[in-house]
Amino acid sequence: MDELDSLDQRLRAMPPVAAMQARALDFDGERLRLAAPLAANVNDKDCAFGGSLAGLMTLAGWGLVSLRLEREGLGSDVYVADSQLRYLAPLFEDLVAEAVLAPDQDWPTLLRSLRERGRGRAQVQARVCTGDGREVATLAARFAAIRAG
Amino acid sequence: MDELDSLDQRLRAMPPVAAMQARALDFDGERLRLAAPLAANVNDKDCAFGGSLAGLMTLAGWGLVSLRLEREGLGSDVYVADSQLRYLAPLFEDLVAEAVLAPDQDWPTLLRSLRERGRGRAQVQARVCTGDGREVATLAARFAAIRAG
Repeated sequence: MDELDSLDQRLRAMPPVAAMQARALDFDGERLRLAAPLAANVNDKDCAFGGSLAGLMTLAGWGLVSLRLEREGLGSDVYVADSQLRYLAPLFEDLVAEAVLAPDQDWPTLLRSLRERGRGRAQVQARVCTGDGREVATLAARFAAIRAG
Repeated sequence: MDELDSLDQRLRAMPPVAAMQARALDFDGERLRLAAPLAANVNDKDCAFGGSLAGLMTLAGWGLVSLRLEREGLGSDVYVADSQLRYLAPLFEDLVAEAVLAPDQDWPTLLRSLRERGRGRAQVQARVCTGDGREVATLAARFAAIRAG
């Protein structure tokens, strides 16, 4: 099973995430994208529910750190510690969230911390854009990773 | 139909919120409490999913502002603008989120703004605690209200 299938399986195993119908789109080692259909994530105003935008961006950050650490052979339990969210515009189409490491962060620092201390922290940024590239929501979040086993 | 039944109806009408099984507990004009069962909101670590904690606290803030404005005869469309979340500890029991106006805010200022300009903003704080009173997650959020009609 490849890493995206494995991530999809973990997403489907969480009831609230299964209800969002969240699934992995692609991962290139630096950026993870997740998608979810609008119909399963709509609010009373016929646009994307803020909680679903928050949830999908948080999952994208969690998945980014989890998959990258697995690629490095440092599989870890990853937890969100805190986040800042901005809701910029209503979204009337399917949700696509992408997450990357924050600009002032680097993977080697996190990997070294995990190897030396069994734990580390990473700052991630995520966003949801419309199909034509306008940002509708952003997240900046800190994740904690604790080496498994 | 009383205001809590009306809120429950609006919660159930949103598919991702219906999936969370979120429901109104009580509202005294100053504090709104919502609940959701752990089973529908569990993550891969058998505790509450961060996205559900974020969603329930955001809904509590949205519901607080919505219900209070309805009581004042100023029914409005209420939108979350931004939020800051902290995840303090895992939660292994049902979720209960409570929301109140932030300490430096007051309802008369918001009501005056809605009456005079048809719109206003309010800062809300929300939290989820365990049954024995330990905070597991907090939210500070800004909401925008636009008078309906």
